[in-house]
Amino acid sequence: MSTPQVAVAMDWGGTWNRTALINRQGDILWQSRQPNPQGGTRAEYLSVAESLLTAAIEQANGPIAGIGAAVAGPVEPTTGTFHQPPNLMALDGVSFKALWESAFGVPVWVGNDANLAAFGEYHFGAGKESADSGRPIKTLFYVTVSTGVGGGIVDNGSVFLGANGLTGEIGHTVVDPTAAGLICQCGSRGCLESLASGTGIGRIAREKLASGGFPDSTLALSNGNEVNSESVFDAAAEKDPLAISILDGAVAALAIGLINVVHLLNPDIIVLGGGVTDGLVRMNLLPRIKEQIMERAMSELHKEFQLTSSRLGDSVGLVGAAAMVWDQLDA
Amino acid sequence: MSTPQVAVAMDWGGTWNRTALINRQGDILWQSRQPNPQGGTRAEYLSVAESLLTAAIEQANGPIAGIGAAVAGPVEPTTGTFHQPPNLMALDGVSFKALWESAFGVPVWVGNDANLAAFGEYHFGAGKESADSGRPIKTLFYVTVSTGVGGGIVDNGSVFLGANGLTGEIGHTVVDPTAAGLICQCGSRGCLESLASGTGIGRIAREKLASGGFPDSTLALSNGNEVNSESVFDAAAEKDPLAISILDGAVAALAIGLINVVHLLNPDIIVLGGGVTDGLVRMNLLPRIKEQIMERAMSELHKEFQLTSSRLGDSVGLVGAAAMVWDQLDA
Repeated sequence: MSTPQVAVAMDWGGTWNRTALINRQGDILWQSRQPNPQGGTRAEYLSVAESLLTAAIEQANGPIAGIGAAVAGPVEPTTGTFHQPPNLMALDGVSFKALWESAFGVPVWVGNDANLAAFGEYHFGAGKESADSGRPIKTLFYVTVSTGVGGGIVDNGSVFLGANGLTGEIGHTVVDPTAAGLICQCGSRGCLESLASGTGIGRIAREKLASGGFPDSTLALSNGNEVNSESVFDAAAEKDPLAISILDGAVAALAIGLINVVHLLNPDIIVLGGGVTDGLVRMNLLPRIKEQIMERAMSELHKEFQLTSSRLGDSVGLVGAAAMVWDQLDA
Repeated sequence: MSTPQVAVAMDWGGTWNRTALINRQGDILWQSRQPNPQGGTRAEYLSVAESLLTAAIEQANGPIAGIGAAVAGPVEPTTGTFHQPPNLMALDGVSFKALWESAFGVPVWVGNDANLAAFGEYHFGAGKESADSGRPIKTLFYVTVSTGVGGGIVDNGSVFLGANGLTGEIGHTVVDPTAAGLICQCGSRGCLESLASGTGIGRIAREKLASGGFPDSTLALSNGNEVNSESVFDAAAEKDPLAISILDGAVAALAIGLINVVHLLNPDIIVLGGGVTDGLVRMNLLPRIKEQIMERAMSELHKEFQLTSSRLGDSVGLVGAAAMVWDQLDA
């Protein structure tokens, strides 16, 4: 009997839990989603997940190759055990692999969502596109610039896991070590996330407005409390100087974070995803980020990288989870 | 016939070229060195190297397992081709592997010296010590703090090479992105190397003295031009406030560089080597570096790393080059 050609993928984020059926080409054949129960118990969270998985397996209408799950938090790779996930604390210590292998009778693999996003882009997104055009990728760095800032690394076809699977955390690299560095939600100061995330951009805008120094800004016309990163992008599109200067700061911070990645990891491709990246693409700011990285690159060989936006968008975690299934089955 | 149990190792730095005979336990059985010819031609450089290798092979007095060379600059791993080595420019484009395999009739492997230092510490230094005490290492980061600042990464028993073998360049990660950041020899600004290297420490001391603001410093008693990093360490040992503040700056800069490494690479051990590290160890400043990293670490799992000084000292490149020979022969 040949291996089934459909995998069940799950992307379990802080807000939504999504599942899909995905084939060997990375195509999404079917998908569904449910919100996490607000303040739910562990059993309630798991019940939502199992009903989503059951629905996907029924939908497959035949044998499935396995289940791959991308989860928002640190995961022990062998057992798929969640470790103190900040946005899914009720699930601390749960070992999905054993649980679902016994419940569904198929192999299960679990990984961190940012790591698997990198893996998805490598196999079915920007990495595949580069390989198809004759430039196969050795080292891919994926960064999601969204509500928060995270990342993942693929090297030589494998996710780089480090000691505990907690690699690629570019959001908490320091880009402003001065005393003026903003306090980050992680407790440190001057992290990239505090300057370039959606949350950070909105907060900076509100603080600037509250300081009273920008009465003419488009942003000041709305109630200061409702300004968020989307309002900043909208105002920047209207050439509002305050909004533009805030995005300049985010671009400069991303460039500092990424030059550190370039010098430590020597990637041949950097892929940016997430909602804030969508805004940066609309404002045509990716070339500015690349330019600022190039200015600081220490050698010509370090400059040999592509910088591009995600090809998989919102589906990057799902597709990455499926990529893990195919990779593990073929290993 | 069994494999010979002795490897020839070379550590080709900017100033000296060293060779050694090293066994499977990482012990140096014999060694020799010669200075590089000042402003020599490519042929003169290669002649020094070949005479050193010939002497080592003769000394072995029997078959050798192969030659491993650690070289100061970017190396293409497959062919062992040097790429624009800043301190050995005459050797740009030379492919040592083919050259020496045909000259000596044994297998040859070539790697970057900082990468191989990491590999040496992993197999025969701090990594081995950790493994022997029951804590095997998954991800090791080595940083040399010396005339310059460089580094290397070992993950899962292999050197992490990235796209072009140019990983671990922590010396050129940005730790001061402000306009006040010092210009680095790489052309960028605010690099770790400009604040924490021997060259950087000496330069900062001389500039502070030249500003005239520290007439009472021990350092001011000597001619400002002759102050170097060693004088700064000596003055700090005598509790000179200026010298202490300069070392505080180097410690803070190293902590910023290393927290970025911790969040991007999630190592379980960080090994510091080089002459400036020796000075920091004498002043008992390594615990301060670790403390400052811990303050910024984003999760408990990220804090699970050891920070220690090199076990192999000056021989780290030689031992790493031999480790590469044994690793490749056993692959």
